[in-house]
Amino acid sequence: MLMAKVIGSVVSTQKDASLVGKKLMIVQPINGEKENIRFQQVAADTVGAGVGDYVLLCSGSSARKMFSGPSDAVDYAIVGIIDTFDF
Amino acid sequence: MLMAKVIGSVVSTQKDASLVGKKLMIVQPINGEKENIRFQQVAADTVGAGVGDYVLLCSGSSARKMFSGPSDAVDYAIVGIIDTFDF
Amino acid sequence: MLMAKVIGSVVSTQKDASLVGKKLMIVQPINGEKENIRFQQVAADTVGAGVGDYVLLCSGSSARKMFSGPSDAVDYAIVGIIDTFDF
Amino acid sequence: MLMAKVIGSVVSTQKDASLVGKKLMIVQPINGEKENIRFQQVAADTVGAGVGDYVLLCSGSSARKMFSGPSDAVDYAIVGIIDTFDF
Amino acid sequence: MLMAKVIGSVVSTQKDASLVGKKLMIVQPINGEKENIRFQQVAADTVGAGVGDYVLLCSGSSARKMFSGPSDAVDYAIVGIIDTFDF
Repeated sequence: MLMAKVIGSVVSTQKDASLVGKKLMIVQPINGEKENIRFQQVAADTVGAGVGDYVLLCSGSSARKMFSGPSDAVDYAIVGIIDTFDF
Repeated sequence: MLMAKVIGSVVSTQKDASLVGKKLMIVQPINGEKENIRFQQVAADTVGAGVGDYVLLCSGSSARKMFSGPSDAVDYAIVGIIDTFDF
Repeated sequence: MLMAKVIGSVVSTQKDASLVGKKLMIVQPINGEKENIRFQQVAADTVGAGVGDYVLLCSGSSARKMFSGPSDAVDYAIVGIIDTFDF
Repeated sequence: MLMAKVIGSVVSTQKDASLVGKKLMIVQPINGEKENIRFQQVAADTVGAGVGDYVLLCSGSSARKMFSGPSDAVDYAIVGIIDTFDF
Repeated sequence: MLMAKVIGSVVSTQKDASLVGKKLMIVQPINGEKENIRFQQVAADTVGAGVGDYVLLCSGSSARKMFSGPSDAVDYAIVGIIDTFDF
């Protein structure tokens, strides 16, 4: 999983049916020192994450498995909220 | 999903049968500030997106699932049009 | 799909059986301005592409689906020849 | 597989059920000279690795297959501890 | 597939059962000019490749399909030895 910070969200009216009703959050991947890495993505939230939260992301077919209903278009999902980073 | 801007299209006569009849758009991934990230790809459109639109992309096996007919060669698809970015 | 230019080929005698009889082309991914991006890969050809052609590549499980016979080792395939780039 | 060094761990209370009970380690991918490459990820441990260990990581659907119980959210796993690098 | 040069190997005693008995080679991806690209990985050998050989790599679910026995942890495999690069 990638570590990331939730920094915003997107609104999309015209979209695949499998995205309807999902919170689509803009996430910025980070390293353990909370520095930005890679590039931003949009992830479907599964744990009630909000802007400013540090989260865990999963990708690909793992992300689709997070939902009991249709999720065909989901390839990135928020699957945990990080409480602490331990070194 | 990646955020992206639709910047063009490609024409291909000689191609896999699963690509026939699909709009193949050149997309430039962006971050939430609409700055270019990563590199351009060609995505099959599923939502009627046009040049200049900001869109959501999905990739891999998710992209193939966007089509009811044959889509074996599709590994990138446009699955939503972004109305607004909220921060 | 990635856009790419076909720049060469590789010869391999000792290889997985699923690669026998396939044309293994060296491809250089490009953007819409035909500038090099990312890094070169070897893709199995499915459309009769030759050196100098601009092509569409698909990757991962999509690439394996391009062949009716064995293709287990194929994770990159040429699936179309690009006639024109429209902006 | 990627080579990596285990550098820490994360604590997450609110997370997908498939992550409960798993050790979630922060890993820094390295090359054979033990120099940092790419970017940090969080990997579920399967071999009893601890901070400071050099390990092998697998990703994607391979990572999910490392667990007999639920592992839907796992897309990165530690699958071996490296004893020696031979050149 | 990626082109790569075999540059070493790793020894791992404590590892997933699906890696037992496999040669785990350190590979450096290259382009057609034999310049290093991307980053090193560890790939399971299927064609008897040795240090110094130029090889073809496949990744992801393709890599797991190279083995008749258990291979769940394998996400990178050497699937061919390159005899010549033609331009």
